Amino acid sequence: MNRHVATVRVRYAETDRMNVVHHASYIVWFEVGRSELMRAAGIPYRELEDAHGLLFPVIEVGATYRQPAAYDEELEVRTTCTTLSPVRVRFDYEIARPGSDQVLAAGFTVHACVGRETGRLARMPAWLMERLAP
Amino acid sequence: MNRHVATVRVRYAETDRMNVVHHASYIVWFEVGRSELMRAAGIPYRELEDAHGLLFPVIEVGATYRQPAAYDEELEVRTTCTTLSPVRVRFDYEIARPGSDQVLAAGFTVHACVGRETGRLARMPAWLMERLAP
Amino acid sequence: MNRHVATVRVRYAETDRMNVVHHASYIVWFEVGRSELMRAAGIPYRELEDAHGLLFPVIEVGATYRQPAAYDEELEVRTTCTTLSPVRVRFDYEIARPGSDQVLAAGFTVHACVGRETGRLARMPAWLMERLAP
Amino acid sequence: MNRHVATVRVRYAETDRMNVVHHASYIVWFEVGRSELMRAAGIPYRELEDAHGLLFPVIEVGATYRQPAAYDEELEVRTTCTTLSPVRVRFDYEIARPGSDQVLAAGFTVHACVGRETGRLARMPAWLMERLAP
Repeated sequence: MNRHVATVRVRYAETDRMNVVHHASYIVWFEVGRSELMRAAGIPYRELEDAHGLLFPVIEVGATYRQPAAYDEELEVRTTCTTLSPVRVRFDYEIARPGSDQVLAAGFTVHACVGRETGRLARMPAWLMERLAP
Repeated sequence: MNRHVATVRVRYAETDRMNVVHHASYIVWFEVGRSELMRAAGIPYRELEDAHGLLFPVIEVGATYRQPAAYDEELEVRTTCTTLSPVRVRFDYEIARPGSDQVLAAGFTVHACVGRETGRLARMPAWLMERLAP
Repeated sequence: MNRHVATVRVRYAETDRMNVVHHASYIVWFEVGRSELMRAAGIPYRELEDAHGLLFPVIEVGATYRQPAAYDEELEVRTTCTTLSPVRVRFDYEIARPGSDQVLAAGFTVHACVGRETGRLARMPAWLMERLAP
Repeated sequence: MNRHVATVRVRYAETDRMNVVHHASYIVWFEVGRSELMRAAGIPYRELEDAHGLLFPVIEVGATYRQPAAYDEELEVRTTCTTLSPVRVRFDYEIARPGSDQVLAAGFTVHACVGRETGRLARMPAWLMERLAP
């Protein structure tokens, strides 16, 4: 398993008329979280696509919302990565204020590993699985 | 239970560099689906907020993605509504091409019923539960 | 010149904590407006890209905001198209309530015509200029 | 005049099927730029709204796009602020790679100063104008 903490600042565009962050914005922050985890693991996602020809399309997403977040708050995206199989990878996320134990929202995504050219499932090479979830 | 079918046309801004619809866009379409279901049920969500002082914040969301959708496609958002309790309502969604049995993506949202002024759980009145899920 | 009127319904996700539509949402509606104008003109933009290998990237955008729009409002996107040269096309937009003379927001986009493969400026064929701005 | 440089990392959700950043994403980055400029100037925008009851709604936006930006690039948002009158403030923006002279996109926004409660134009106090554009 691999862990990483990224930081986001709530943008005005990410709020809605309920005066809090819109629930779909968290899904985009999850993406920030896994991008930064992968960069820290030495395999920037862009490189995975462009240099290795592998895509990680999202095949499942889930999130629970416990406490709202407000405009301009700085938040942590705490991400962990686990490989489920040679063709499936899962990321888990917690959104919280820096240093706080109180989780505002939690969620996960499951991704297939797909060949960019073939559009079909592709087994992750061993080095990739190792770096994602040592 | 209540059913409704809304239609969306995929916007360019809703796609990403994978050349298909970004997964967070579906979450926004789910919102379109439940808005239109509620309008058809005689309780436009805006009215619920503004005239009745009740909010339905999302407390849980889930989605699975089976087949990608492309820019400019016309898609149906097939929504059903069930009330789970006087303070919980659930919507289920299927995204599919018009008239097709093949579901491209499916998902659900669970909402709390909250008082706009109090910010606390509020029991839905009987007429509201009845209209949402007759 | 070519004219078209499209309709959008304000989504919750398109509002912000000021309780009105976020200004960037109009830029996306402009995109809806020109997509629908092009479809009505017999050249769906997707076809331009996929069948004719031409892209219309935005090289300039401008908008003025006069009156706010609210969640759930139905709005018209009134679009006109003019060709500026064989490699430049311009769309102008007005956002207004159906049947109303009061323009809530107005704007424009200027696009280059670019070859998808070459990434360089490409002259629009005569039939395309004719259909865009007869 | 006041200057500030903020940094953004291009998110996957901010790209589109043209394989580059969608033009509306820059408008959101402009917002990041002015938020960070205001924070650095000692008047976080959230405080302006919540503590001082003043809003800066966008009344005009413009942008030109010169070179595309790609997924995962780190970009600078170089923002300057000028006060046009006691009820008008203008921000200018340049988007560029760190340390680069080549501007990928440039733009501006003009804002009215409006009272949160009244919804009407409100003169900025002298201290605010001084901090925005010393």
